[in-house]
Amino acid sequence: MKDSASAKSTRVVRLRSNQPSREELDEIAVEEPLEIRVEGKSVAVVMRTPGHDRELAAGFALTEGIIRSARDIFEITSCLTTANPNDHVMNISLADPARFDAARLSRHVFSSSSCGVCGKATIEAAMRQFPQIEAAPEVGSKILRGLPAKLAAAQRTFQRTGGLHACALFDLAGDLLLLREDVGRHNALDKVVGHELLANHLPLGDRILLLSGRVSFEMTQKALAAGIATIAAISAPSSLAVDFARASKQTLVGFLRDERMNLYAGSERVRH
Amino acid sequence: MKDSASAKSTRVVRLRSNQPSREELDEIAVEEPLEIRVEGKSVAVVMRTPGHDRELAAGFALTEGIIRSARDIFEITSCLTTANPNDHVMNISLADPARFDAARLSRHVFSSSSCGVCGKATIEAAMRQFPQIEAAPEVGSKILRGLPAKLAAAQRTFQRTGGLHACALFDLAGDLLLLREDVGRHNALDKVVGHELLANHLPLGDRILLLSGRVSFEMTQKALAAGIATIAAISAPSSLAVDFARASKQTLVGFLRDERMNLYAGSERVRH
Repeated sequence: MKDSASAKSTRVVRLRSNQPSREELDEIAVEEPLEIRVEGKSVAVVMRTPGHDRELAAGFALTEGIIRSARDIFEITSCLTTANPNDHVMNISLADPARFDAARLSRHVFSSSSCGVCGKATIEAAMRQFPQIEAAPEVGSKILRGLPAKLAAAQRTFQRTGGLHACALFDLAGDLLLLREDVGRHNALDKVVGHELLANHLPLGDRILLLSGRVSFEMTQKALAAGIATIAAISAPSSLAVDFARASKQTLVGFLRDERMNLYAGSERVRH
Repeated sequence: MKDSASAKSTRVVRLRSNQPSREELDEIAVEEPLEIRVEGKSVAVVMRTPGHDRELAAGFALTEGIIRSARDIFEITSCLTTANPNDHVMNISLADPARFDAARLSRHVFSSSSCGVCGKATIEAAMRQFPQIEAAPEVGSKILRGLPAKLAAAQRTFQRTGGLHACALFDLAGDLLLLREDVGRHNALDKVVGHELLANHLPLGDRILLLSGRVSFEMTQKALAAGIATIAAISAPSSLAVDFARASKQTLVGFLRDERMNLYAGSERVRH
């Protein structure tokens, strides 16, 4: 298996019930930040898979209403900043710069936890923002394997619509404490964290967070904000989620299904 | 089936191969905008499933670094605006308003197509921004049924990592023209649209867009920006995606798998 722009190899510990654990290389989807600028002005930092960045910038400009047609683009250039060679920035120069109204855009902006440009800077900024986990607890692989069935049993709306992401909080014995569903995965996690915050339960070091879908950088970061030490997901993590979990001393479990799981971070804390 | 905050009923035409079409009610996940304010200042418009909005606002404030603990919150109130009773706004008053630094937040903002507060206003604003489809073409249900297998065959990275969303463009004969993958579904679509924009192929009225996952409001809106008249998805659409597709005269197909599909908008244009 070779690294490409869209996938890269990482060490993972694979657990299957009734089999010894195996450490091997696994392919994960690459997630890295790209800053999009229009006339040199930053309009977005998107967490994306590298490749086709020029098309991404052009498509973003069209679908966000910044341009109307290809004729509105004078050129799209990749800016290499000398300060950090890992920065990824695409700048769109317009055919008619006078028509670009940054003020109109600012009505539409909203916050994101994408707080830097290169992946490393993002992680370092986030680590400064939220303290890393001091001592994540051990968790049993048998407890982890039992969680998806408990989530599915509790997720009635999901079964009806097929359109909602779920976030659930379990204790270390595997008992379900809280479940929230939302069309947006970040919202489902924010609702879980908000509930625990308002109940004065933070930090959540002795809780297991179970996600119905994939794990992006933003999900690991939001979990860390609440002090969540153990994250398990039914589906795959991104490369930046793995990097972030390792740096923040979180335990990260992916592909938790069918009696198996992959340990991407903190595998020494999962009892087999 | 009853409507709740998180799911609601909509009319859908169900097609199965070798069976007559049936029109019935289907449950879809509710997607609506919520504006989050801190000290009366708008910090985010999130597209969310209604319910637990207070927790969502509190969790968002914590995980985005606006507050550090529950003690930082003085109160969270729901603002009903008289201008539009459908507006959903949660305002967080801080225990120490002087410590809130909106300027620090603005470093982190990025653009979104969530350009209004109530769903209707959002749709109307978007409809003003991008013209609705004039005459969406007819598509054959047999052609549609063949698309997922073609996508899967082309999606090599997905099979390796399980972590990428895919967007593919087909012609009306069902031939694959373009495929892009990304950890972010919006990015995958922006890359497809950007490619076609730079190749001077817009508008894409005679193309079928196939999405590997779910369809949110934002995906239908980005598709309309490129003039895409026909959207098909392996998974479920949200309520706002259905409303938007109907208003913009797009054809919207969901749950396209296993010889079946649901037609959420423009069912009269799908030949059975």
